[in-house]
Amino acid sequence: MPRLVLIRHGQSSWNLENRFTGWWDVDVTEKGAAEARAAGEMMAAKGLDFDMTFTSLQTRAIKTLNLALEAMGRLWLPTEKDWRLNERHYGGLTGLDKAETSAKHGEAQVKIWRRSFDVPPPPMEAGSDYDLSADRRYAGIAIPATESLKDTIARVLPYYEERIVPALRDGQRVLISAHGNSLRALVKHLSNIPDDEITGLEIPTAQPIVYELDDALNATDRYYLSER
Amino acid sequence: MPRLVLIRHGQSSWNLENRFTGWWDVDVTEKGAAEARAAGEMMAAKGLDFDMTFTSLQTRAIKTLNLALEAMGRLWLPTEKDWRLNERHYGGLTGLDKAETSAKHGEAQVKIWRRSFDVPPPPMEAGSDYDLSADRRYAGIAIPATESLKDTIARVLPYYEERIVPALRDGQRVLISAHGNSLRALVKHLSNIPDDEITGLEIPTAQPIVYELDDALNATDRYYLSER
Repeated sequence: MPRLVLIRHGQSSWNLENRFTGWWDVDVTEKGAAEARAAGEMMAAKGLDFDMTFTSLQTRAIKTLNLALEAMGRLWLPTEKDWRLNERHYGGLTGLDKAETSAKHGEAQVKIWRRSFDVPPPPMEAGSDYDLSADRRYAGIAIPATESLKDTIARVLPYYEERIVPALRDGQRVLISAHGNSLRALVKHLSNIPDDEITGLEIPTAQPIVYELDDALNATDRYYLSER
Repeated sequence: MPRLVLIRHGQSSWNLENRFTGWWDVDVTEKGAAEARAAGEMMAAKGLDFDMTFTSLQTRAIKTLNLALEAMGRLWLPTEKDWRLNERHYGGLTGLDKAETSAKHGEAQVKIWRRSFDVPPPPMEAGSDYDLSADRRYAGIAIPATESLKDTIARVLPYYEERIVPALRDGQRVLISAHGNSLRALVKHLSNIPDDEITGLEIPTAQPIVYELDDALNATDRYYLSER
């Protein structure tokens, strides 16, 4: 039966500082790197193995994947990197910490943006320090100015259908290293979670989430590997 | 003009112990990892950049690539990993250090194997500790029992023509992280080095070798990046 494992990157420097990160390319912390290695060791110890891996174009997810694969002795597995697995783009909130965001926009509004399925944050302002339009890695891509979770889903799922589903149908065991919201998009789809519930679902860092799938790629089971 | 950069993996644990490594999957040492990061920093500082990267299925080359790319802020570049960029297979010499090899086979014979273009070492014995026939990464591949440099070239060059030449023709800037002998194969081809000279050409660890190519992909210049 096909199996799919999802892993959110280990703690990043801006997770630690509680800043909206989105597409900004922060690194994992030492703790985050250790989490990634521990996830790889756990996957190997519990007998998980893979044929194909996918990740975003963001350092924290790529490093998490590489550190986990290295701990498993699987650095030689193929990896496809794609922007469509990137974190949700937080628009004008990018770089702000919780206190700055509340001071600028008010706590009620922040709660709406955090918890809303389809209301995006304000767009990133022109000339922002966090503007990525000159970043070569996104050449040829219409970089969003901001994204709701709904917008994120609208680019994650076509990528899943186009690139990941064929690998699963081919019998490959797949590992995806990505981000809180790109993984929410996949969990929503696979576990059929309603719009108003998915925004509240927390994806912990570097905890492998295992999906057992039937031949039609419907989920028959979902669990944290640490709990089995 | 197309540009191709070759890098041999940083020091491995068996480089340090002077043991024949071949396809055995030893890791880089701390010094080797530092060499890889320094190579990445030098490439970034000297303005080298890439669109596509290639490496072998061996941890020491993959890690060297990843560490160099990370130092360049280019971990997001695509990477293709292929067994045809692996080190030369040292057959029955695998795992032996210099003293053991001389004791077992005599120094004169060892010199012949080291320096000969087309005389392979004795084949790996059945039941060797270093037998890789059960290693999943080589599933579907006829793992050689031993290789001369000529044998190594005979699998490196078709891969170069099939996968790397199209990228270069497409205008992509290419980085290859590989091994002493798989890189000798490429240097022999690109620099048109005779059979009896190529075996004596040393490829230093983690020193980027830059090839400037014309539109027909003939080398117009070859240099160590550290010397420019």
